[in-house]
Amino acid sequence: MGQTRIILDEAEIPTHWYNVAADLPSPPAPPLGPDGKPVGPEQMLAIFPGPILEQEMSAERWIPIPDEVRAAYALWRPSPLCRAERLEKILGTPAKIFYKYEGVSPAGSHKPNSAIPQAWFNKVAGTKRLVTETGAGQWGSSLAFAGQMFGLPVRIYMVKVSYEQKPYRRLMMQTWGGEVLASPTNLTKTGRDLLAQDPNNQGSLGIAISEAVEEVVTTPGSKYALGSVLNHVILHQTIVGLEAKKQFEKFGEYPDMIFAPCGGGSNFGGAAFPFLADKAAGDKRASNLRCVAVEPASCPTLTKGVYAYDYGDATGYTPLMKMYTLGHDFMPPGIHAGGLRYHGDSPLVSQLHHEKLIEAVAVPQVATFEAGVMFARAEGIIPAPESCHGIRACIDEALRCKQTGEPKTLFFNLSGHGHFDMTAYESYFAGKLTDFEYPAEAIQESLRHLPKVG
Amino acid sequence: MGQTRIILDEAEIPTHWYNVAADLPSPPAPPLGPDGKPVGPEQMLAIFPGPILEQEMSAERWIPIPDEVRAAYALWRPSPLCRAERLEKILGTPAKIFYKYEGVSPAGSHKPNSAIPQAWFNKVAGTKRLVTETGAGQWGSSLAFAGQMFGLPVRIYMVKVSYEQKPYRRLMMQTWGGEVLASPTNLTKTGRDLLAQDPNNQGSLGIAISEAVEEVVTTPGSKYALGSVLNHVILHQTIVGLEAKKQFEKFGEYPDMIFAPCGGGSNFGGAAFPFLADKAAGDKRASNLRCVAVEPASCPTLTKGVYAYDYGDATGYTPLMKMYTLGHDFMPPGIHAGGLRYHGDSPLVSQLHHEKLIEAVAVPQVATFEAGVMFARAEGIIPAPESCHGIRACIDEALRCKQTGEPKTLFFNLSGHGHFDMTAYESYFAGKLTDFEYPAEAIQESLRHLPKVG
Repeated sequence: MGQTRIILDEAEIPTHWYNVAADLPSPPAPPLGPDGKPVGPEQMLAIFPGPILEQEMSAERWIPIPDEVRAAYALWRPSPLCRAERLEKILGTPAKIFYKYEGVSPAGSHKPNSAIPQAWFNKVAGTKRLVTETGAGQWGSSLAFAGQMFGLPVRIYMVKVSYEQKPYRRLMMQTWGGEVLASPTNLTKTGRDLLAQDPNNQGSLGIAISEAVEEVVTTPGSKYALGSVLNHVILHQTIVGLEAKKQFEKFGEYPDMIFAPCGGGSNFGGAAFPFLADKAAGDKRASNLRCVAVEPASCPTLTKGVYAYDYGDATGYTPLMKMYTLGHDFMPPGIHAGGLRYHGDSPLVSQLHHEKLIEAVAVPQVATFEAGVMFARAEGIIPAPESCHGIRACIDEALRCKQTGEPKTLFFNLSGHGHFDMTAYESYFAGKLTDFEYPAEAIQESLRHLPKVG
Repeated sequence: MGQTRIILDEAEIPTHWYNVAADLPSPPAPPLGPDGKPVGPEQMLAIFPGPILEQEMSAERWIPIPDEVRAAYALWRPSPLCRAERLEKILGTPAKIFYKYEGVSPAGSHKPNSAIPQAWFNKVAGTKRLVTETGAGQWGSSLAFAGQMFGLPVRIYMVKVSYEQKPYRRLMMQTWGGEVLASPTNLTKTGRDLLAQDPNNQGSLGIAISEAVEEVVTTPGSKYALGSVLNHVILHQTIVGLEAKKQFEKFGEYPDMIFAPCGGGSNFGGAAFPFLADKAAGDKRASNLRCVAVEPASCPTLTKGVYAYDYGDATGYTPLMKMYTLGHDFMPPGIHAGGLRYHGDSPLVSQLHHEKLIEAVAVPQVATFEAGVMFARAEGIIPAPESCHGIRACIDEALRCKQTGEPKTLFFNLSGHGHFDMTAYESYFAGKLTDFEYPAEAIQESLRHLPKVG
């Protein structure tokens, strides 16, 4: 066995995030309002603080990471870059497999990489409290933790069905001092109207977003925070790829292919974009680099969606964004990788895919758990269902290398552990897990409802 | 903020474990059979392999760690040594607080530190399969993981009430390929007899041990593995303190006091014994070192027990060991820190306490969760209920330092995360957690049943 892990020293935590917008072949399409005109900063400032909005619209290539953010990152960063040599042996592949492990964060995933700076920049801008929504709880727990680090109260609208069925994530948020409400609530007009129609409304992510945003625009001192999709979130997540580049240097390697799960895009963008920076800068090592976004076959946004303006949420509350979408009212099947059940995708990831600078592949659910169990038995770590998607695609490539004899260097982002997803593994072992059929008709139907622009 | 964490390079994983038996003021008392005579190796070889038994009885100070074990350790080791500067600030103490974080292991605690070498030495000795028991599942999941690393099948008798109520740990074991049975089973005479009396028997740790040992002595090729108490287990756990010593050097610090939870003793011994080695060698930095074993007030073995020969299990199946004990048939109250509910203690820890080379303190349950939540809000990591005991005692000392103005260097072993214990936090937040009264009468009664020796 060679070196298993490279862990950088705390002083090697990157000092700047990388903004891929500076290296795009054409300028990003702006978000549009309901009137079809670009949304002005004043509208966005009602829900986001100034420094975050600046990052959202910035064309600067490198954006400094404040010392206070680096100090909070140091609670768990730099995260390890590991060589999966045991997995390589089991597969019998000539490929080298590396993974970055983001499950070492307190919340157990990559999400705090953006929650920490979002909490910090809000604190600096004078925000008194943060409001957000969460589905299964990954983002809500990350923001509760981040708010606690900087003394900022956090309220989380949690989808009621998750609130009741997934108490562990809720308890994590409460342990970090977060206030968790089962959405829909009686605190917002959105919630009251829905409960008047049906007191047993079980909630949805779309409803929770609407409640959080409604509260923010009507409550002075409050701001909203989002865990994926937007440019500033992906910017913060580039800490993953930037660290990985330093670690690959120490391994004396450079990836030929990068794999990461892709729901809203922050996991994939965070891992891949810093390597695309090398490609943009003409670095020869990156000249043949391939970056592969891995999505669920049942929610195949990049592989089967259209590139068009659409709402970011299910109900049409947000600005319109140019992105790959399955239609904002498409309801993805109930796969266990809840973090990948999103109808759209990050505008930055979407544009790069549209311009053929990255690739995408869709994988079926059962095969992802098969890969996750194989990985756990080889390397120890039990991966989150979302992370299993990247592992599946990486293993598939390693098996292709076995056929062709190519000694490729493969890299995937292990975005989180599965400690709160063991019931999904139970379904897998019990043979109860299904591959949902490709929801062609539902997608066709929702694509008919795309908003008309211009 | 200064340096937050020191992480060693993989090459700095220690090459030898430290055996405190070499530095004891008097030789350890031998285990005795039911006839009151020392147990011979041939009896022990029926359940443990030769190399493990050699370690159990060794008087060598340094025992080499095989390369294969160091390679498996490298999947998560070296673990970080962290400075809890945010906690210090919240407490307003002049003390410096450091902690070693063992929750980074795949199983989430320090237990794999011994599971890995036990699996390896069994493999080397020709063992075909391992059998063990588990209560809440920490040890069972660690051994399932370790067996998987070396291709050794593992069967785990899991206490039935835990099997049913705590499915997540069971699923972890299954993910790593472990075979988990709800004990009592129909596979052993012990189990069959109990089920004949009561088909709804909910099991106990004592029953599960009896079933595992019965299977091992009646099944060729099978060996037994234990997760605490015995000398070889504590030997393996010294990897924790040995790494911490290197990390303290890099911090330019040396602890004045060490705190660790103490149930069977492997957590405490692993963290503290390597520092006692310095003291034994006349190292001036260690001349005033104080090592504090922290136990639950409801199971106060070292602080309220007697130092005597007693059985290691509840039913009198094991050899007699000289140790602090509350009586082998004492049933500790149902605190959430299941790993600390043990009537006895490691003979090595017991002897050191008897010879006043270490100290012990008992803390009540509610105060441990109060400390755990304070720690989580300061440092991010949500600790296991067992680990909260060490944190409580360390915080109490930090608050004493605030009174006296002493800038002591305090060190505790954060033995694991609480991801599978969130329902305990739920009880705490709901105000439903109780401090069990000191079970004086039950202890008096069980101490009357101590076996007569000699």
